[in-house]
Amino acid sequence: LLSRIRLPALHARITSANEAANWIQNGMTVGMSGFTRSGDAKMVPLALAERALHDPFQITLMTGASMGGDVDKLLTESHVIARRMPFQSDPVLRAAINRGEVMFIDQHLSETVEHLRAGQIAPIDVAIIEAIAITESGAIIPSTSVGNSASFAILAEKVIVEINLSQPLALEGMHDIFIPGKRPHRDPIPVMSAHDRVGTTAIQIDPAKIVAIVITDKLDSASTVTPPDAETDAIAGHLIAFFEQEVAAGRLSNALLPLQAGIGSVANAVLAGFKDSPFRHLTMYSEVLQDSTFDLFDAGILDFASGSSITLSSKKHDEVFNHIERYKDKLILRPQEVSNHPEVIRRLGIIGINTALEVDIYGNVNSTHTGGTHMMNGIGGSGDFARNAYLSIFTTKSVAKGGKISSIVPMVSHVDHTEHDVDIIVTEVGLADLRGLAPRERAPCIIQNCVAEPYRSMLFEYIKEAQTRGGQTPHVLEKAFAWHTRYRETGSMLKSTE
Amino acid sequence: LLSRIRLPALHARITSANEAANWIQNGMTVGMSGFTRSGDAKMVPLALAERALHDPFQITLMTGASMGGDVDKLLTESHVIARRMPFQSDPVLRAAINRGEVMFIDQHLSETVEHLRAGQIAPIDVAIIEAIAITESGAIIPSTSVGNSASFAILAEKVIVEINLSQPLALEGMHDIFIPGKRPHRDPIPVMSAHDRVGTTAIQIDPAKIVAIVITDKLDSASTVTPPDAETDAIAGHLIAFFEQEVAAGRLSNALLPLQAGIGSVANAVLAGFKDSPFRHLTMYSEVLQDSTFDLFDAGILDFASGSSITLSSKKHDEVFNHIERYKDKLILRPQEVSNHPEVIRRLGIIGINTALEVDIYGNVNSTHTGGTHMMNGIGGSGDFARNAYLSIFTTKSVAKGGKISSIVPMVSHVDHTEHDVDIIVTEVGLADLRGLAPRERAPCIIQNCVAEPYRSMLFEYIKEAQTRGGQTPHVLEKAFAWHTRYRETGSMLKSTE
Ligand SMILES: CC(C)(COP(=O)(O)OP(=O)(O)OC[C@H]1O[C@@H](n2cnc3c(N)ncnc32)[C@H](O)[C@@H]1OP(=O)(O)O)[C@@H](O)C(=O)NCCC(=O)NCCS
Ligand SMILES: CC(C)(COP(=O)(O)OP(=O)(O)OC[C@H]1O[C@@H](n2cnc3c(N)ncnc32)[C@H](O)[C@@H]1OP(=O)(O)O)[C@@H](O)C(=O)NCCC(=O)NCCS
Repeated sequence: LLSRIRLPALHARITSANEAANWIQNGMTVGMSGFTRSGDAKMVPLALAERALHDPFQITLMTGASMGGDVDKLLTESHVIARRMPFQSDPVLRAAINRGEVMFIDQHLSETVEHLRAGQIAPIDVAIIEAIAITESGAIIPSTSVGNSASFAILAEKVIVEINLSQPLALEGMHDIFIPGKRPHRDPIPVMSAHDRVGTTAIQIDPAKIVAIVITDKLDSASTVTPPDAETDAIAGHLIAFFEQEVAAGRLSNALLPLQAGIGSVANAVLAGFKDSPFRHLTMYSEVLQDSTFDLFDAGILDFASGSSITLSSKKHDEVFNHIERYKDKLILRPQEVSNHPEVIRRLGIIGINTALEVDIYGNVNSTHTGGTHMMNGIGGSGDFARNAYLSIFTTKSVAKGGKISSIVPMVSHVDHTEHDVDIIVTEVGLADLRGLAPRERAPCIIQNCVAEPYRSMLFEYIKEAQTRGGQTPHVLEKAFAWHTRYRETGSMLKSTE
Repeated sequence: LLSRIRLPALHARITSANEAANWIQNGMTVGMSGFTRSGDAKMVPLALAERALHDPFQITLMTGASMGGDVDKLLTESHVIARRMPFQSDPVLRAAINRGEVMFIDQHLSETVEHLRAGQIAPIDVAIIEAIAITESGAIIPSTSVGNSASFAILAEKVIVEINLSQPLALEGMHDIFIPGKRPHRDPIPVMSAHDRVGTTAIQIDPAKIVAIVITDKLDSASTVTPPDAETDAIAGHLIAFFEQEVAAGRLSNALLPLQAGIGSVANAVLAGFKDSPFRHLTMYSEVLQDSTFDLFDAGILDFASGSSITLSSKKHDEVFNHIERYKDKLILRPQEVSNHPEVIRRLGIIGINTALEVDIYGNVNSTHTGGTHMMNGIGGSGDFARNAYLSIFTTKSVAKGGKISSIVPMVSHVDHTEHDVDIIVTEVGLADLRGLAPRERAPCIIQNCVAEPYRSMLFEYIKEAQTRGGQTPHVLEKAFAWHTRYRETGSMLKSTE
């Protein structure tokens, strides 16, 4: 334990999760570590959920991104969460959000702590941060994610640290904690390439703020990413072929540009696709580092990866963490306000690959809402990357729900990314390169390349009618959502005759 | 003339507009200076329009932003423009775009030259740049706008310069030409405050590229901004009151933060409103500097203004240009890739004030399309600012077309700015502060504060029904555009009984 809590004065703060949870009272704003299910606060949240069963109270809960370990589920079931930001991916919480019981503020992942720092949202009363250790000076060394932990700890009035013994001490040195200054007197973020270290390896705060330390050895939750299938492989194939063309055209080198890959199966499959590609000396400047990142390291194809968290399948977890030294000089974990900072993304010239729920014929993307109304996870970092990337790519399977839903629709039922921010769309059918095209050109390009029958003909029919109405972006407004309405009413976007 | 063309070798390149126009051939991509009707190429474009009447040809036309002097109109009438980017505001061109005759690529103003530099859109064959002078080394000193002129001249194969004798030589020294490096090896943009000079005062290119010089004394077109009215004054009043509250809450100082104000009457009126405000030592980091900028200088309220162009009414034009020395150390004109750069906007903490065509109950904004289909002007810089601002404010009158159109609708018929990027909405009715609110909270806040009857009750009715459907963002998709459809069919969004 001495190697984990190196400031002796803090040993007296070690306590149980239940005791620590008492620092959190009704009406407070709580910031928890956790990003894509890793490095999340694990014990105190459960103690909170437990306590609320007999002592009801509510909080505003902020995290980095999604939590593992059923934290969001249990807190929802205990009615602890009144407000939640900036991202979640739990089915139980999602249902409560969609019933209007939890107010969910869906934010660009780079922005939450900007608002906090500027006092534009309620300040954090208590931060709960998972750590591998606390240094001699009382600085917190995060575990498998940085997320918003650094700014939460710095801005919070009180800090609870969960020391997780299952997280290897070898992670020390892998983090790079840099916090942008207060505006308007902010200096540039000095990250000039994915491997630049610009900060410290721990989060320095006044140790007097650390009111409780809880010891645990609970593992990170495993990634829930599903394995590649024929469609995700096809998507990966189209993308690799496209990158080869870009290299042939002289626009990209064989090292491409720093890659960002969103959460989920498609992103993982696309990265896996690089294993059999001619590209070398790749780098990543991304959010979450998944199994595929380590496969590419092992294959000698990836030189460096910068992210905000490491989220692995249980199989990969042991492989990686038993040999973490192997990757140590190839990895940096950063605060999400740096991994996702518009300034850095624009400067480095990122190739951003994110997943859409639905895309429309003009290239607008919906990443968050099913049926235009119901929240899936949130926009996450997709906006930070899509807006500022050198190339903004969106992937999706061309259909969902066994073909009853077309992922390419006349008009998306919710817009997260406007056509201005979408360069390339890829489905298993093919790839649409939209660069330099006007909306009337984008539509046939997307329909022809990314959609299979019968939806292809249905979309061509739609634009034919829409063009009689004229405009830069022809639409028949009263039919724009007819497919969504049909799905709601009949369970399929297909007409009964089709 | 010697003071205007200081490199003697170039005197031989002086020629007529007609001669110069011969450098432009069918199929070429032409980049012209011009941003919000100022500093635009004036003579060669007209010669092109003239020539096309008997010798038809087509080009791709890129500019900074909108052109004055009927350039877009005449080129459209002569069918010269096949493709146009990134912005326009001419009624004749707009009609051709909406008929599908001109392909209009509507882009974030900071991005056009990023795409060019990266070879992602067709390269520029000829640049036509208005200048006040050419230096001893052949560098081009722009006139009343910088826009995309610098990168166009640098990236073009050939350059035509229009020396405009009506533009005062006293403008020399006011420009700050800084061009971001090629990615992935780009350094930070070193602008740390609105008044930082980081570049040169002229655009340095190889003078051998200057194939023709045309002399003119044609004036910039006057601004078309309409004067303030009761509604724009009310909007300005609500905003000033809001800023006062922010100062009282300790979030802003009396100098606020650098202001950006979009094009148009509302922006002008809002800035004019500062004249009777308690704020002092204001700065602007904006795109276009309008009449109000100079009024605020004269009132001693504004300390410094950075922009990409100066566009004045004819009355103000003489006042300002007869005493331009007065303003010289208070003004910088920058390339639009710097004035609008996400990096700088995020760093400085801009207060961005832009105008919406329509807004929906959840705070999504349409800045470009009427009826969801027909282009007005383009997104311009509004996305660059709204996404990265410290505070993103959108203004609009609550109704248009004498009340037949509600500017606040159940769902916007086109999305340019998603709810994530919209903090404040102001109409003449009042101001909605959306910071930290979830969609279900945003809706009543917007309806209550920004909408007058009868639309207010109609919107409350809509959300009541929508909430029976549930979701993070409740909607009745089949009715979401019913108001737009009714307007199209009956000429009013009001039901016939209302
Ligand atoms: C968009 C996103 C949900 C896709 O995730 P994924 O795991 O690849 O998606 P799937 O294809 O498995 O689809 C998820 C569910 O949505 C359903 N779905 C997919 N497309 C749909 C559509 N157009 N309409 C309705 N439902 C749809 C699927 O059927 C599936 O339903 P199920 O959970 O009942 O099986 C996910 O990438 C996301 O949350 N993105 C936003 C955040 C982000 O992009 N972050 C990037 C930076 S990390
Ligand atoms: C949105 C924008 C068009 C508003 O400009 P404005 O001059 O303040 O707007 P007006 O209120 O005069 O409206 C312009 C026209 O649209 C019409 N209009 C306004 N709201 C409308 C709506 N909801 N539906 C249909 N038409 C509408 C007006 O009636 C007017 O029509 P008219 O030309 O026939 O009189 C303008 O700000 C713009 O182009 N913005 C996008 C670019 C931008 O924001 N740049 C900012 C950085 S510089």
